[in-house]
Amino acid sequence: MAMNGAESLVRTLVAGGVEVCFTNPGTSEMHFVAALDRVEGMRAVLCLFEGGATGAADGYARMADKPASTLLHLGPGLGNGIANLHNARRARSPLVNIVGEHATYHRAFDAPLTSDIEGLARPVSAWVRTGLSARDVARDGADAIVAARTAPGGVATLILPADTAWEEGTGIAPTPAIPERARADDEAIAHAAAALRSGEPAVLHLGDRAVRGEGRRIAARIARKTGAKLLAMTSNARIDRGAGTVPIERLPYPVDPARETLAEFRHVILVGATLPVAFFAYPGKPSALAAPTADVFALATPEQDQIDALERLAAAVGAEAEPEVAPARRPELPTSDRLDPDAVGLVLGALIPEGAIVCDESVTTGRNFFPATHGAAPHTWLQLTGGSIGLGIPMATGAAVACPDRKVIGLQADGSALYTAQALWTQARERLDVVTLIWSNRSYAILRAELANVGANPGRKAIDMLTLDDPPIDWISLARGYGVGARRVETLPDFIAAFRDALKQRGPALIEVAL
Amino acid sequence: MAMNGAESLVRTLVAGGVEVCFTNPGTSEMHFVAALDRVEGMRAVLCLFEGGATGAADGYARMADKPASTLLHLGPGLGNGIANLHNARRARSPLVNIVGEHATYHRAFDAPLTSDIEGLARPVSAWVRTGLSARDVARDGADAIVAARTAPGGVATLILPADTAWEEGTGIAPTPAIPERARADDEAIAHAAAALRSGEPAVLHLGDRAVRGEGRRIAARIARKTGAKLLAMTSNARIDRGAGTVPIERLPYPVDPARETLAEFRHVILVGATLPVAFFAYPGKPSALAAPTADVFALATPEQDQIDALERLAAAVGAEAEPEVAPARRPELPTSDRLDPDAVGLVLGALIPEGAIVCDESVTTGRNFFPATHGAAPHTWLQLTGGSIGLGIPMATGAAVACPDRKVIGLQADGSALYTAQALWTQARERLDVVTLIWSNRSYAILRAELANVGANPGRKAIDMLTLDDPPIDWISLARGYGVGARRVETLPDFIAAFRDALKQRGPALIEVAL
Repeated sequence: MAMNGAESLVRTLVAGGVEVCFTNPGTSEMHFVAALDRVEGMRAVLCLFEGGATGAADGYARMADKPASTLLHLGPGLGNGIANLHNARRARSPLVNIVGEHATYHRAFDAPLTSDIEGLARPVSAWVRTGLSARDVARDGADAIVAARTAPGGVATLILPADTAWEEGTGIAPTPAIPERARADDEAIAHAAAALRSGEPAVLHLGDRAVRGEGRRIAARIARKTGAKLLAMTSNARIDRGAGTVPIERLPYPVDPARETLAEFRHVILVGATLPVAFFAYPGKPSALAAPTADVFALATPEQDQIDALERLAAAVGAEAEPEVAPARRPELPTSDRLDPDAVGLVLGALIPEGAIVCDESVTTGRNFFPATHGAAPHTWLQLTGGSIGLGIPMATGAAVACPDRKVIGLQADGSALYTAQALWTQARERLDVVTLIWSNRSYAILRAELANVGANPGRKAIDMLTLDDPPIDWISLARGYGVGARRVETLPDFIAAFRDALKQRGPALIEVAL
Repeated sequence: MAMNGAESLVRTLVAGGVEVCFTNPGTSEMHFVAALDRVEGMRAVLCLFEGGATGAADGYARMADKPASTLLHLGPGLGNGIANLHNARRARSPLVNIVGEHATYHRAFDAPLTSDIEGLARPVSAWVRTGLSARDVARDGADAIVAARTAPGGVATLILPADTAWEEGTGIAPTPAIPERARADDEAIAHAAAALRSGEPAVLHLGDRAVRGEGRRIAARIARKTGAKLLAMTSNARIDRGAGTVPIERLPYPVDPARETLAEFRHVILVGATLPVAFFAYPGKPSALAAPTADVFALATPEQDQIDALERLAAAVGAEAEPEVAPARRPELPTSDRLDPDAVGLVLGALIPEGAIVCDESVTTGRNFFPATHGAAPHTWLQLTGGSIGLGIPMATGAAVACPDRKVIGLQADGSALYTAQALWTQARERLDVVTLIWSNRSYAILRAELANVGANPGRKAIDMLTLDDPPIDWISLARGYGVGARRVETLPDFIAAFRDALKQRGPALIEVAL
């Protein structure tokens, strides 16, 4: 069957299991758009801004465990998507990132939109390729799928010159088999087993696949047998949690509490987690968070099969029995009028519905939400992995596309929400079942604390750089502008009532919560 | 006087004439923020999104003819600023782009926000440097100013590790002299003079400094003497125009009319203009727009002194007399009810107030605004230079900061406005005198035409990718969300009345114009 490069590529993506394309196209991508039109099996989701597309693709990948594609417009379009590609890179989300480019012969003319797209793509991509011809572009697409899905998962950027889209293609290219995850070394299992048998304080520091449901269950068996503690990373791509799952705390974000948490451990056993390090450097404080004398080592890296490694470690230490999981204790709804982060945490614990997907970009407001929701109905929790704010609303959008039957709840700091609020429009357009809770403190609250942390002594001009109250952002109007109904609540009973209403209805809603 | 690196840098910037910083800071920039606090002479303008900061710095530079600085947060913050840095690069706007980075010793720990900032910066920067120590950072800042201001002007990116900000600095570093623009070659002048004397059809294709007021006057003398035509580039960083100035048309954006415009010319003399090339490639159409047999050459490149070159060429062809400039004919206000782009052009021609700065990101709607405004009151017109949409509202913001006594008028396509509408908030916060006219056609109108241009035959799914009507964007609510008053007009008399009201008041306003 004769088809052009664009259609060969789209059909290859569909055949390779890529079913969604988050798009913000321009002229150079028109043949790809036309191909989306002709091909069954690829849902095209329009975004108003590229950060919405890349963040949605990240959220989709975390829930679907497979890549969506994006469609971005040359270097500047990629630029707008970089912040959330950075988060996707840190989440190790598989993602086929398609960036349009001028026709191969046109690039030498340095037209206004010309730029070094590969240069922009490399810092956020595990794999980058520029298509050379329409004959090869289907195979390029298949290679991109493999690159995105090969453990630990990553952003595969395929740059698509317009003529490789519009010239005659070669049809569907088969997607090669995805390589299996490598097994952890026997030496690492033996080392961890010895550490756990030593009787010295040890912690299993869990990240990536090890921190989801299954990994945590095995880790809890090991902990019960050996006395080791369990600790999740500060930021995790995905944790399936709530009633019936093993509760786990996270390494605190601030440096001093993080160091205190780790101080007691002689052995820090990383399972899918990276080295525990400070998010930022501070004058006079160390970057590494474990005790200087601790033995910090990887049982299994994010690239490796962490579940297998945990099973082998469990066998090595004789931890065969299932762990006892404490019965879920769903918090009671708080009864005071006071609307503060602690009360919000209790409300979440009480009201999160079964199967909900929580997309957490709460920043300062949400630091205590985890303990309050251990006993909530079973749900999935997605976090900001790369520290690049502006992920929350797009991530919720993508998660809702991946899981149309699950309620998505966005926990959203107000300053962060302002980077990519356009994604609300995509939620309205696609009738996605997302309720976004905006923590409206009208400041970059984290920076007020950080300004103190770095020892700076701020005056009026500095404080002005951290406040959003002049003029105040009116979230009800912003949400309406994008077609999403919204209300503002200022008391706890009003918050509870509004949240309950939003959970009952289907489709997007936003609640501005005055904190 | 003892001061840390951040304060040394800020004082160096102020001493070097950098008076404004468009900021969107994070933790790693807190010492710089604190230094802004302590130092007189640097206005700090907070932006909600980095593309607002970089676009504002571009608009500021075009009007002030000197750099502002930015303050962005690590790689992802730079990423969000890249699209408008691309436009600034194409406008050759001087810009000191300051990007915070982890402390030098912290980078090796690969904390979540770590990325290759230099790699991201290079494609949009004329100069990139990462600070190595607090002792050198003031000199780095002075070097950045020189790099930004050296002809033709560009983005100088200074990456600022946190410890180079917080450690002991060395005080103000003097800014070296900015190199003079190089003079055009005598051979180029002689070649152009010969071409103009040949009697064969010739065009002076003007860009950069040559297209502003003074260059255009000299070029018009030459044209009057020799019969050459004048033609501006399709997109220009800045043209000072209106009554009393030399009217000039632009090379059309679409390929076929552009080729027709240039077809007659045997000599295409570039003065500050780059090679006339198609914005995008299209199947079966050439990239170069001049006739294949034409002699296309540079009298003066953007790096060179274009005014001097024009003066020398004028002398060589004996064009000493001042050109006759036709008396300005301000268009009458149209009297019909029909609200369409042609009527809007006439309204602009009639109502643009003297000294206004027009920031034009009209895209399809504005293609005929130029002829209708040749006779308007004297004003300045800024265009989208790099094709990266989402510049308009930020550029207007920066222009208003640079010129507080001039009315700024934003001509704004709706699809493009949605990339960086957050800049409206900065307009409200800083009480900037900007009226934004949103051309609300609720579609990516340019892409509907482009889809036809590339020969694709779209269906429902493709058309859906180009429309913004489900749900419709409600610009009145969006603007209110950011603290800017707004109204929507659907008839020509209402548009005229609303525009007149907005011109009379001071401070930001937005009018959604239904087209």
